[in-house]
Order: sequence, then C-alpha cells, then structure tokens
Amino acid sequence: MTETRQWLLNGHPRGRPINDDDLKLVTTSLPEPGPGQMLLKTHFLGFDPAQKGWMENIADYVAPMAIGDVMRGSGITEVVASNGGKFPVGTMLAGSIVWSEYLIHDGEGLIPCMHELPPTAMLSILGTTGVTAYCGLFKVGEPVAGDVVVVSGAAGATGSIVGQLAKIAGCTVIGIAGGPEKCEWLVKEAGYDHAIDYKAGPIRTQLKELAPNGINVIFDNVGGKILNDMLACIATNARVVICGGISRYETGNLPAGPENYFNLVFRRARMQGFIVLDWASEFPDIRRRLVKWVNEGRLAYREDVQHGFENAPNTLQRLFSGSNKGKQLLKL
Amino acid sequence: MTETRQWLLNGHPRGRPINDDDLKLVTTSLPEPGPGQMLLKTHFLGFDPAQKGWMENIADYVAPMAIGDVMRGSGITEVVASNGGKFPVGTMLAGSIVWSEYLIHDGEGLIPCMHELPPTAMLSILGTTGVTAYCGLFKVGEPVAGDVVVVSGAAGATGSIVGQLAKIAGCTVIGIAGGPEKCEWLVKEAGYDHAIDYKAGPIRTQLKELAPNGINVIFDNVGGKILNDMLACIATNARVVICGGISRYETGNLPAGPENYFNLVFRRARMQGFIVLDWASEFPDIRRRLVKWVNEGRLAYREDVQHGFENAPNTLQRLFSGSNKGKQLLKL
Repeated sequence: MTETRQWLLNGHPRGRPINDDDLKLVTTSLPEPGPGQMLLKTHFLGFDPAQKGWMENIADYVAPMAIGDVMRGSGITEVVASNGGKFPVGTMLAGSIVWSEYLIHDGEGLIPCMHELPPTAMLSILGTTGVTAYCGLFKVGEPVAGDVVVVSGAAGATGSIVGQLAKIAGCTVIGIAGGPEKCEWLVKEAGYDHAIDYKAGPIRTQLKELAPNGINVIFDNVGGKILNDMLACIATNARVVICGGISRYETGNLPAGPENYFNLVFRRARMQGFIVLDWASEFPDIRRRLVKWVNEGRLAYREDVQHGFENAPNTLQRLFSGSNKGKQLLKL
Repeated sequence: MTETRQWLLNGHPRGRPINDDDLKLVTTSLPEPGPGQMLLKTHFLGFDPAQKGWMENIADYVAPMAIGDVMRGSGITEVVASNGGKFPVGTMLAGSIVWSEYLIHDGEGLIPCMHELPPTAMLSILGTTGVTAYCGLFKVGEPVAGDVVVVSGAAGATGSIVGQLAKIAGCTVIGIAGGPEKCEWLVKEAGYDHAIDYKAGPIRTQLKELAPNGINVIFDNVGGKILNDMLACIATNARVVICGGISRYETGNLPAGPENYFNLVFRRARMQGFIVLDWASEFPDIRRRLVKWVNEGRLAYREDVQHGFENAPNTLQRLFSGSNKGKQLLKL
C-alpha cells in the first residue's frame, strides 16, 4: 500500500476563470500493482491551456472530466515497482497521466524518455508542445522559404518553437507577445525577426509596416482581436493555422468571431484547425528532427519550473495570467 | 455616331444599402469603331452581389470603381458593326461589359455564346455563377459521395446549382433559404434532400436533427449568424467554403465574425475562400460538363428576367431584398 496525494476535479470553471475550489487535494492509498502493472512515481507535471477546456467539459474531442475524477495532465514518472509490467524499474516515462504523486499504471500511452535531452524535454520540446508546433506549422501552415510567418502567443511554449521552426525553414518571422521582456526574448533568444508588443499599441499598423506584402502564414494561439488584426493583413493564398484560443479562457466563452474571416474570400486563403494526434505515427521521426536542431543550437526551448505538488493548481493558473516563460512545468 | 444610354457610378454605397442616387442615367454618343473594334448591342445584363462591393470600392481584388465610371457588370451583346474586329457581325458574345446599351469594344475578355443552351445561360449556369458553384464545391469543398453538404443562400443563383452538383456527386444536400416558397422549390425542383427556412425558426436544432453525424461540407453564401450556426454542426475534417457574405450588404460592413470558427480546432476542419478566376483555364471543360448535366435533365437552373435598361439599378436591388428567384437578369 502506497499513500499518495491527488488533485481531484471539484468544479467546472465554465464562463469564468479557474478558482481555488475547482480542484481539491486528497490523500488516498493505492493498492499493490496487479499483474502487468507498475507503481510509478511522478517527478514532473506539464501544463497546457487545453486543461482548462477539459475541466470545463465543453470541448468534446477529448474524454470529458467529471467531478471527483483525478485531474488529468502530462507528466514524467519513474517506475519504482513492477509486477511484470511493461517497463523495468528505474525507467523514466513520459505521457498522459493524472495529478497524483504515485500511480498504478499498465504503461499504456507512456513512452520512455529519450536520452538525448533531459527528461523534461519530453513535456516541452519533444512533447505535445513540440510536435504541435511542428505539425501545425509544417502540415497545416505549409510555409515556403521566403514566406512571412506571424505567430501570436509567440513567447508561449508552442509559439516560441513555431517561430524558430519557421526560421529554420527560411521564413521571415514576426512574433506577437505581451510586454517588452517577452518581445526582447523573442528577438534576442528565439531568433524572431520582429516582435510586436500587443500591450504597447495597435498591432494592425505594425503588421502592415513589417509585412507590406502581406502575411503568408498565421499561427494563432490567441484568437479574438489579435486574430482579427492578423486576418486584416493576409497575403493571397495565406494559410491561417488555428492552434489555440487563449483569449477565450478568461470568460470560458469561445473567442470572439473574427469579422475579417471574410478576407479569406478576398485573398483566396484558408483557415484550418488540427488535432496533433492525427500524426501520432510520425512523432518518433519528428522528435528526432527536433533533437537534432536543439543539439545544433538552432532550436532553443524554455521551461518554467515551479516546485511542490501542492502548487499544481496555482501553476496551471500561471498559463492564463501570462506569467509563464516557456513551457510551464512543476517539479514534485 | 451611335447614341446610347449608360449608367454611371454616382456614389459609393458604403455602410448602407444602395440608394437611387448611387447610379446616374446619362445619354452619350459613341464614336465609330476604330481599327479592330466592333460596335456591340447589349441584349441582357447579369447581376451579382459582388457588384455592390465594386460600387463600395472597399474590396481590392478587382479594379476599383470611381465616381463617373460606367457601371460594370456581365452581359450578352451582339456584334452589330465591325471594323476588322475579332468576331463577325451577328455573333452573340458573353462576358464582362459595362451598363451601356451600345459599346465600342475590341472583344477582349468576351467569348461567343455556346449554342447548346439559350444565350442567357452564359450569364447563369454557364457563366461565373455556374463555374463558381462548380469550383467552390468541387475544388474547395471536395465533397465525397455520402457526405452531408449544407448550402446557405440555397435558392440563390449559385446556391441552387451547388446543391444539384452535390446531388450528382452522391451527397445528401440540405439547403437553407428564406421563406416557404423558396424551400419548396429547393426540394421539389432543385433536388435538395431537405430545406430549412431560416425565417421560420432557429436553424441549429434543425441542422442537428437533419445531420446527426455532422456536416461534412458547408457552402456559405451568407455569413453572419447562419454561418455561425452551421459551424456549430460540422463533422470532423469538415470543409467550409466561403463563397459570399450577402448578410454584409445591408450595412456595408463585413458579416459578423463567427465565434464558432473555433470548432475548426475541435473538428480539425478548414474554412477557405477562393477566387474562381484562378481556374479560368478549366472553364471550357467545366462548361461542357454543366451543359451535359442540363441536357440530361439532372441540373435545373432558374433565371429571373426583368425588363428595360432604365430598370437596371432596381434590378440590382432585387438581389439584396431576396426578391430574385434564380439568376437575376435584365432584358434590354
């Protein structure tokens, strides 16, 4: 019997921000691992804005979460005991888990951490974040060398990778982020050609100046007014990748509809969503490419590591206040 | 010297409907045709909602119209005199002209009417309307037999053709139109499987009932609330073809942005505009296909013919009041 703390869903944050009562910390006892099962110890949790969507239980493309369910998320775990399980004791595993210090698990959906980078990379550059950036940009955005690529939420975990991938692909890259510190980081560290601080003034005129021939690829993590401003500046045949809509999370409503969607007609352009799991069979190859670029010094990634299992809900909140710098992680 | 009446642009109807002062009727004298020129007599004018956009001069993908320009539109003309021009006297020509009873023209951009159907077909089923329906549906919407296709503005010139083409391609077709008469026509004459009268009540619940597994292809001529309701019901991998936004013309503003654009993410779907001229090289082949289906009785088309050159502005207005039944034409 192993004692463990767990965070349970205790409220659906619909139409409002997450509050302190939406998650409840409990202590419970886990049974011994049954045949084929392992006891896993959680070392890191990874955070993503989509988790609020799961808590709201309004999106229907992932299994809904009910009150009392252990909160779902990504994590790095270590096999500490095994009853004939899939991986030997001592293996570091990455994948979708729940917010629990220890877990009984059959290993389904978990993969061993790659050795080329530290284990946390499996939650950031080599995790859903990295493959989302890769697939969204290359498979949906289809950038061509010489294109102008604009990324909103550019200093976020996904956005910062997208911009660097677009640079590797020979594009000119403009990032939109909030505040001078993030903008400086984009240009100095993440290799963006230009950064626009949306808090400092209207972005449409800046986009027109920086991309006088129009934007070829938009990678949008934000929605709302920023998406609308970007759509006002698209070039003929533009591809608009809708990756996220962080602007919606404040209210729980969908982001406002962009009236400039009609520019899709004037510019014969397309706007497209995607679900990264559709390319799951390619993830091993994509991870190898990402590792290579990191090791060549062409792809930087940032992790924002908070500490203490009891701080998991507060760490999730950092995503919605824009406090995180790079991929938000929690070390247990 | 030939005397002719012409309609000149006299005001930009921006942010408001077209009014009586926006076009001015004048009489002018045309010179004799110069070398290579012909004198053309206009028999029919064709009308399209995009013409209000030209008058507004806010869309920038067609040459802007200035005050005093002769109003631009499509038409059927006959060669009545020629000074070594491209086509012999007596030829009926179709294409982009101006609102003038007679024109001096070198024939550039005009094509002889096909003989398989009456000349007016070159302004409707075989004109921009027909090829827009064909290209928007097949090249952008990419329907697959068995798909559910929903068309807004379904009783309009383009919409009624789209639905029938989707039927030919083996799809289930739902049309959205205003009023019981149009809806009855859709089902009884145009072969639609179902029609929804948007004036009779909320359309979202009806769409969910008629397409319980979701909409695979949307062909939108309307924008605004109707587009938003359709987006609420898309299936995974849906294609959303944005062809027009008639709902915008009342105010001159773009249609409201559809907040359900975010379903593009949940449903990994795409929304796309197009400019039919991109496929101009294929128009002859597309017209042959359309003629064949018409002659086989598989493709019906409707023309709404008004009379008298002096009624040209009023005839254009019929598009925005929803008065037209099929392609709006004017016989001089």
